[in-house]
Amino acid sequence: MDLLNNYLIYLIPVFGLVGILVMAIKSAWVTKQETGDASMNELAGYIADGAMAFLRAEWKILSYFVVVAGLLLAWSGTTVATSSPVIAISFVIGAFLSAFAGYLGMRIATKSNVRTTQAAKTSLAQALKVSFTGGTVMGLGVAGLAIIGLGSLFIVFYTMYVKNVAGATVNGDDMAKALDVLAGFSLGAESIALFARVGGGIYTKAADVGADLVGKVEAGIPEDDVRNPATIADNVGDNVGDVAGMGADLFGSYVATMLATMVLGREIVSNDAFGGIAPVLLPMVIAGLGLLFSIVGASLVKIKNETDSVQKALNIGNWASIILTAVATYFLVQWMLPNDSFHMLRDEDANHAIKAGSLVFTKNGVFGSILVGLVVGTLMSIITEYYTAMGKRPVMSIIRQSATGHATNIIGGLAVGMESTVLPILVLAAGIYGSYFFAGLYGVAIAAAGMMATTAMQLAIDAFGPIADNAGGIAEMSRLPEEVRGRTDNLDAVGNTTAATGKGFAIASAALTSLALFAAFVGVAGIEHIDIYKANVLAGLFVGGMIPFIFSALCISAVGRAAMAMVEEVRRQFREIPGIMEYKARPEYEKCVEISTKASIREMVAPGLIALITPIVVGFIFGPEVLGGLLAGVTVSGVLMGIFQSNAGGAWDNAKKSFEKGVEINGEIYYKKSEPHKASVTGDTVGDPFKDTSGPSMNILIKLMSIVSLVIAPHLNTNETGVKTAQRQEKVQSITVHVVQVDKKL
Amino acid sequence: MDLLNNYLIYLIPVFGLVGILVMAIKSAWVTKQETGDASMNELAGYIADGAMAFLRAEWKILSYFVVVAGLLLAWSGTTVATSSPVIAISFVIGAFLSAFAGYLGMRIATKSNVRTTQAAKTSLAQALKVSFTGGTVMGLGVAGLAIIGLGSLFIVFYTMYVKNVAGATVNGDDMAKALDVLAGFSLGAESIALFARVGGGIYTKAADVGADLVGKVEAGIPEDDVRNPATIADNVGDNVGDVAGMGADLFGSYVATMLATMVLGREIVSNDAFGGIAPVLLPMVIAGLGLLFSIVGASLVKIKNETDSVQKALNIGNWASIILTAVATYFLVQWMLPNDSFHMLRDEDANHAIKAGSLVFTKNGVFGSILVGLVVGTLMSIITEYYTAMGKRPVMSIIRQSATGHATNIIGGLAVGMESTVLPILVLAAGIYGSYFFAGLYGVAIAAAGMMATTAMQLAIDAFGPIADNAGGIAEMSRLPEEVRGRTDNLDAVGNTTAATGKGFAIASAALTSLALFAAFVGVAGIEHIDIYKANVLAGLFVGGMIPFIFSALCISAVGRAAMAMVEEVRRQFREIPGIMEYKARPEYEKCVEISTKASIREMVAPGLIALITPIVVGFIFGPEVLGGLLAGVTVSGVLMGIFQSNAGGAWDNAKKSFEKGVEINGEIYYKKSEPHKASVTGDTVGDPFKDTSGPSMNILIKLMSIVSLVIAPHLNTNETGVKTAQRQEKVQSITVHVVQVDKKL
Repeated sequence: MDLLNNYLIYLIPVFGLVGILVMAIKSAWVTKQETGDASMNELAGYIADGAMAFLRAEWKILSYFVVVAGLLLAWSGTTVATSSPVIAISFVIGAFLSAFAGYLGMRIATKSNVRTTQAAKTSLAQALKVSFTGGTVMGLGVAGLAIIGLGSLFIVFYTMYVKNVAGATVNGDDMAKALDVLAGFSLGAESIALFARVGGGIYTKAADVGADLVGKVEAGIPEDDVRNPATIADNVGDNVGDVAGMGADLFGSYVATMLATMVLGREIVSNDAFGGIAPVLLPMVIAGLGLLFSIVGASLVKIKNETDSVQKALNIGNWASIILTAVATYFLVQWMLPNDSFHMLRDEDANHAIKAGSLVFTKNGVFGSILVGLVVGTLMSIITEYYTAMGKRPVMSIIRQSATGHATNIIGGLAVGMESTVLPILVLAAGIYGSYFFAGLYGVAIAAAGMMATTAMQLAIDAFGPIADNAGGIAEMSRLPEEVRGRTDNLDAVGNTTAATGKGFAIASAALTSLALFAAFVGVAGIEHIDIYKANVLAGLFVGGMIPFIFSALCISAVGRAAMAMVEEVRRQFREIPGIMEYKARPEYEKCVEISTKASIREMVAPGLIALITPIVVGFIFGPEVLGGLLAGVTVSGVLMGIFQSNAGGAWDNAKKSFEKGVEINGEIYYKKSEPHKASVTGDTVGDPFKDTSGPSMNILIKLMSIVSLVIAPHLNTNETGVKTAQRQEKVQSITVHVVQVDKKL
Repeated sequence: MDLLNNYLIYLIPVFGLVGILVMAIKSAWVTKQETGDASMNELAGYIADGAMAFLRAEWKILSYFVVVAGLLLAWSGTTVATSSPVIAISFVIGAFLSAFAGYLGMRIATKSNVRTTQAAKTSLAQALKVSFTGGTVMGLGVAGLAIIGLGSLFIVFYTMYVKNVAGATVNGDDMAKALDVLAGFSLGAESIALFARVGGGIYTKAADVGADLVGKVEAGIPEDDVRNPATIADNVGDNVGDVAGMGADLFGSYVATMLATMVLGREIVSNDAFGGIAPVLLPMVIAGLGLLFSIVGASLVKIKNETDSVQKALNIGNWASIILTAVATYFLVQWMLPNDSFHMLRDEDANHAIKAGSLVFTKNGVFGSILVGLVVGTLMSIITEYYTAMGKRPVMSIIRQSATGHATNIIGGLAVGMESTVLPILVLAAGIYGSYFFAGLYGVAIAAAGMMATTAMQLAIDAFGPIADNAGGIAEMSRLPEEVRGRTDNLDAVGNTTAATGKGFAIASAALTSLALFAAFVGVAGIEHIDIYKANVLAGLFVGGMIPFIFSALCISAVGRAAMAMVEEVRRQFREIPGIMEYKARPEYEKCVEISTKASIREMVAPGLIALITPIVVGFIFGPEVLGGLLAGVTVSGVLMGIFQSNAGGAWDNAKKSFEKGVEINGEIYYKKSEPHKASVTGDTVGDPFKDTSGPSMNILIKLMSIVSLVIAPHLNTNETGVKTAQRQEKVQSITVHVVQVDKKL
């Protein structure tokens, strides 16, 4: 057992390697599935090429960004004693792995789509197997790369700054330095995530709205029609937005949550068998277990007959992975954390006595916080589903208000979106309160870590949706039989529900992650309070609250502008290329793909820079406490705007979809093409950028701004100079004492 | 001069009396103007009756509320030593005066409208004179009643709790008690304001949207057509929403600003010639001067020729009153405040030495803060105008996006609304920073007081708009000659601009007022910090941020429901009363008025109770610091949602109006009835509840929740018991010493 204690740190990347191994096997299985006829392959080829074209264009821009930001980080690392230029390497690796995770997901998604279509010719069970395995590859890839990256870098930095030094001399800031440098990894991951989410979100909606405006409205051809030059761009959009964007988002959350918990864990004075660093290691080990049980859960997702419920199969897998992880985490906590109570270093006075009124907590408390995190995540998904599901009151109210026209449909959707913030916020507030009650700020962070533990499974379910959607598109474009499209439609419908619940989960995780990062920031910046009674902090709170509004405005209007450019191009092709309408000439799909790519890459820059630069400017000019106010404002306003926009968009979407089967309003049944349906289409179009561009970007916005703040925290001047360094030295002394003891045992 | 010093307190209500006297003269002048022919008088009669019917219905419900809340206040006043049951009386007087101010405004508005129509037969100059005099009556009435009420009650409570006691024994909490009781006045005023604003807002938009949906769309008759049963309700709505609602809103802001400044002024240790209470008296005297100079400014608003600019005339009057008040305030501050520097009591240690890092300020600093307030108010108006004015970039962008349909028009408007939060928030943040820099938290409060000083003039300009609007409606319904309607349209167009700038001003004043109340609350609750680093405070911040969202959702969907009820009724009348369409039968206007009245009264309850009850529940369960977090969340989110909704609504409105004269989109000119115009009508309808119901209600929401918190503050348990009482005793001792000295001199 002693041996395990001492080598646990080296075991962490192994969890990730297991994940990647299973991913490779599943990926190979998908690859060897049949791909169907030539027409299907041609279309799938266009989509795969378009997706890669976007990635290449995005990577080109982002590589400049990574180089510039990396150099700045390296330079800044040399300016402060507590910091290190090594952070630049950490940053580049984070950025690279995030981009690589996106690439893996996109490659498997663009393979799985056509194979799912082909499998749907056989049975629903087989189609589910192919599409969900594709999703699993994505999930395992993201989680595996994150754990390998974070775990390995931690070993390196721990060896560099803590372990090796420890035997020799006691250096003041060792563990802090290791984690400061590790924060660069998270910053790299989250920066790429922001651009991927915003760029992908603009891409997918520009193509979607543009294709619909000219194709459906002007030319009168159906959705997913091969004659529409923008249809490939539309299908590419599903991959770059929903697959790569969502993957990067959760990769970032996953890493940021672990990092924030580790930073707070560093501040804990704990008499454990791991040299006092058990609270630092715990989140990574939980993630490792969660990854293993995600593999177990994913293996349970299967159906036998055509009439079996796909949703039920997904739920079984999801719940299995969550419950197994929770049980395993209980034993893990019992093993890793000490039997005595423990506390934060900042709660000690100069004589190591715990200050009056300070919080002391136990390993059972920590497990309590993890459970709170799991409950919050589950409730958020349920609430989100209620507000966006067909047949429930919110969507029904929008349908009813569609009867009096476009305007009342919009008013109805906006009201639903605003109302839908109430329960999530109350759940979140109760979650903050509860997890803090059990284990202080560390509890808030570890709650987020618990919630994120099964990210691989969550992402498998999330990525399955757009794969099924694409499969349906290929079936439609290839004009396959009704039976095949029925199966892909079945999968697609489940995918719509999981997309909604996935968004609820993503928002909850982002909120808790941001709070954990916020707490970590305060610790690293070495400030005692963030007092909104101070005028400057309050001003920061106002400015922070405003940022999600301007960020959303930029995203929404970018979609509008990019969609207009797409419209122009489609009109040009219809005009200049004779024979498109008669299936005699192939439209220049790649031109539309290029338009969407260029526009999204161009338009993602401004919102991205706001998120990156604001905390730096505010932090250096006004100090860490005002920056803390800014972060609180961004987080509160961002969570609210995220929930509002995502749910309004989801509800509008399903209100429109309800007309496909017919809806009753005041005793009359209305179908597609009726006036109320037209009004519902308006709502859906407004909801598109809400739910797929600006809404989900809020998650990354709030996380990224928190991480930037965390990274610059050691550089900020505080009024309480010395507090920080003194506290760190205390902690590091207690760690190094343990490390020396451990070293002797080996 | 000594005599003036000692009796200044008694002079304050005299300012108010002067205002009321001038108001009476101007009111008499309006009343004796010609009212036109029988048809005009009949229509005006319906409008006046409808408006009174709404007021009576509202008063009935509100009287129950006032009785219940008054009894609760009286009871709670007996439970805490620092409080008094007298607060109930103060509350009832505040509620009564607020309602009475609304009544005065509505009565003069319903008189001025038809007289303006009649005057428009003669000349534009005369029409402006009548309508603006009507507005002035409203402005002077609101400001006059507020100053009389607050000033007289202060004299009474000062005499009861401070002055008379002072000569005998030193009682610990004298001045604090006087101001705690006075807070009841503000609570009464703001409660009524909330119901008036929300109820009026729902009324006016339910009638407006309902009338349009059946009249314009289904029956194909123009706006303001006598055959539409809802047309009178629509015109009544302008009065109950824009006149009474706006009046109550600004009455509440005006009183709350003075009160908050007085509460903070109480905490100042000042060696002035007024027994140390100069900082407490100052805001009321500034308001008095502002009222006098508003009378001067109003007298300058006049034009001579038909081609003179109405806007310019209003600007001259506005600027004159602001500049004169600023100059007078400079001398006032020089006279009233001491030459030595002064500071907040909380910044003293036990030995009366000023703590390190504390803020010390001077009379010039206080004047600096007042100037900051004036600048903030002016900038907010200018920015609001930019974002909502015809021909400027934001409105033009919405017009362009109308070319591709309803959805893109909505996306455009939402983006403009969100973007429009940026500059106002930066101005506000700079204003907070600047006014705090000059004079600490007292500076933030006095900045708001400075901004609100010329409320009478602001309100005169605001109320002039709906009077002109109504005058145009009467001209239309009575089918008066083109020339007359041209003049009322001219006034109405100016009224639209002033409505937009007025909203910017109202939001800025509400924001600063709330911050002042927030600061006052912290002082009265006796807490040292509001630390958002604490998990429970952060949870409070989240819940607070959510409240404006649910409040807006309730307001918006209330308008939707009430409009549907209106639609049903109008359809019934068209069906059951033969001859309406041929002008042979009079529609039952009063039925529609009743529907709108009942619906708005019913729907205003839920949002009102949220605003009133949330702070009480949170305060008593979670304590004052969490309540502080809640208030900060409400304020930030409320200001953002207020600006977003008001500006989006205003921009949509003017985008639609731009089509009347024709707009160019991509080289083509579009007019009314074109497809882009129809899309713009959708935006305008969505914007209606945004800009006239939920948006402006945000102002009162944030103020009311702050006032409720201030009133309950003495009842809340703090962890730092004793701090509060000790501080108050210190201050009151210094005051009583001065009072004894002053008394001896007399």
